[in-house]
Amino acid sequence: MPNLVADFEAYRARMNQRILSEDHQAVKRFFGVDTLTYQDGALDRKTKEMLGLVSSLVLRCDDCVRYHILECRRLGVTVPEFFDIFSVGLVVGGSIVIPHMRRAVEFLDEVIAGETRNTV
Amino acid sequence: MPNLVADFEAYRARMNQRILSEDHQAVKRFFGVDTLTYQDGALDRKTKEMLGLVSSLVLRCDDCVRYHILECRRLGVTVPEFFDIFSVGLVVGGSIVIPHMRRAVEFLDEVIAGETRNTV
Amino acid sequence: MPNLVADFEAYRARMNQRILSEDHQAVKRFFGVDTLTYQDGALDRKTKEMLGLVSSLVLRCDDCVRYHILECRRLGVTVPEFFDIFSVGLVVGGSIVIPHMRRAVEFLDEVIAGETRNTV
Amino acid sequence: MPNLVADFEAYRARMNQRILSEDHQAVKRFFGVDTLTYQDGALDRKTKEMLGLVSSLVLRCDDCVRYHILECRRLGVTVPEFFDIFSVGLVVGGSIVIPHMRRAVEFLDEVIAGETRNTV
Amino acid sequence: MPNLVADFEAYRARMNQRILSEDHQAVKRFFGVDTLTYQDGALDRKTKEMLGLVSSLVLRCDDCVRYHILECRRLGVTVPEFFDIFSVGLVVGGSIVIPHMRRAVEFLDEVIAGETRNTV
Amino acid sequence: MPNLVADFEAYRARMNQRILSEDHQAVKRFFGVDTLTYQDGALDRKTKEMLGLVSSLVLRCDDCVRYHILECRRLGVTVPEFFDIFSVGLVVGGSIVIPHMRRAVEFLDEVIAGETRNTV
Repeated sequence: MPNLVADFEAYRARMNQRILSEDHQAVKRFFGVDTLTYQDGALDRKTKEMLGLVSSLVLRCDDCVRYHILECRRLGVTVPEFFDIFSVGLVVGGSIVIPHMRRAVEFLDEVIAGETRNTV
Repeated sequence: MPNLVADFEAYRARMNQRILSEDHQAVKRFFGVDTLTYQDGALDRKTKEMLGLVSSLVLRCDDCVRYHILECRRLGVTVPEFFDIFSVGLVVGGSIVIPHMRRAVEFLDEVIAGETRNTV
Repeated sequence: MPNLVADFEAYRARMNQRILSEDHQAVKRFFGVDTLTYQDGALDRKTKEMLGLVSSLVLRCDDCVRYHILECRRLGVTVPEFFDIFSVGLVVGGSIVIPHMRRAVEFLDEVIAGETRNTV
Repeated sequence: MPNLVADFEAYRARMNQRILSEDHQAVKRFFGVDTLTYQDGALDRKTKEMLGLVSSLVLRCDDCVRYHILECRRLGVTVPEFFDIFSVGLVVGGSIVIPHMRRAVEFLDEVIAGETRNTV
Repeated sequence: MPNLVADFEAYRARMNQRILSEDHQAVKRFFGVDTLTYQDGALDRKTKEMLGLVSSLVLRCDDCVRYHILECRRLGVTVPEFFDIFSVGLVVGGSIVIPHMRRAVEFLDEVIAGETRNTV
Repeated sequence: MPNLVADFEAYRARMNQRILSEDHQAVKRFFGVDTLTYQDGALDRKTKEMLGLVSSLVLRCDDCVRYHILECRRLGVTVPEFFDIFSVGLVVGGSIVIPHMRRAVEFLDEVIAGETRNTV
């Protein structure tokens, strides 16, 4: 039962819609820049999403970590690659990153379990 | 006159040597893990150094940014790639990243100027 | 059903009482300074609460955000003013603020829904 | 019913095992350094755990706070000593520490309640 | 001799120009959103700059603090109002804010000294 | 030539005096709580200063680190004890703590060199 993933995506979609419905120019344009930043450029989208993931991890933002795990996975990041990303976050950010890494791995495992179900 | 680069590298080398001379087991082993983390793995060293750079930028550690700029440059990261990394750091970490980005670009420009001199 | 608001206020009241019951001088005096800080001064209480709100948002403390939303609302801050505060927090603190902004807006909407019920 | 404590310990044990099962060298060695750091040295283990607790508190990592509360308590830290630690965290880290202090005190009270039950 | 102010403004202008000369779309648009955020809206520009100042202070970004002190001062913020802003930053962010407050007050005093010279 | 120490103490004294001269009630009372926090209590002053030092280190506030190094040293903290404190800060806060540890060790070495001169 991929509750973590489904719950995260539903809440994120609902509240982003609520926020954008307020039609606040600076907020809307910030969301636009956020989307633009991860498009293919000198670095490809996959590398940028990995950069977004490690940044979110060292800043210890669980929801941001979840978002970038989903995007990374869609772009083909493998489990060993995820652990390389986590290890950089861990050594840069220290042991306070560990609880966030636990939740990240739990979320990632659920994402992968969902893929298997969808494939079978 | 690459003073920023030379001064950074001299101070870093001198104080790391001083710290390791104390022979504190946990500190020494932390330094060992730090080195190990950036070795080739599922992700190559260049990608890991880029992850280290963006992590340092969002955590706003100027000296860490400098170190990873040097490592990234040695591994062939181009200026447009650096700006892609900076842009992810900027959107994730916000406008408080800007002063650190200014110093990062100043440092990067000096690194590149030094390469040109060495080549001619 | 304003559960977010009621739960927050009940837990906060109960645990503050528990903490102050320990009668620790430095802790008690810190709580006193915290209260004093938001009194009318050169800036009025409403402006100070808005300052407290944006500070809590960029430091990504959900409970602090909730507290200052309640105080701001009691002092007459309007929804468009809240979004101006959120937008400053967003651009200063970056996309890692977004998940906290989602929870802030959800909480604010519940506060306002409660006002409507109380009025009718 | 010590749910906070039991849930924390069960989740922590399960996810640490999952993480270490991946057999990632840098991650495993980081966990090793983390353990080594709190062994008796020039400072004894109790003092080091108090240092770990206050660090976790100012960095506002609830799970880290919980872990170090358990370790401190096993090493004999008393309630008045805990409040001295909390007060340093509060003045250094500011009012954003208060919500984490609330949860820390709630957790500590549950730990102590569990000791009483076990003794009777 | 307003060196702090003049040096800050010269370096900021020079490096912002260098950064924008790279013509990186996401970076340029981020700078645009940053400017837009502080325009008059539901809250006036002065209030928004005060919000930007306190956010910069609790996030302990000296250069951001300097920028917003200049903007606040141009918009008529008085010394007692600045100290009210600083006091909110201090209580929210804790004693680690004090060194940044020292540099902020030194900078503010220099800004005011420069105004007097220009007037006489 | 103990410039680091003398410069730090002179600047700190001068700017604290300037800040307190403004006679802002909340700011003054915050400074009072800050002093009170480190007095002997359930934990002695030396332990509390060590807690203040590690907190400052993981929050990466160089000036706070310097202040607590001076206080710790006056209360008899030895070099091996300082390195134990630094090692906890390092593992909790990660590699971004390293540049601050370099400056801390440089400052500590200067403090100790000054003691030797004063003794001879």
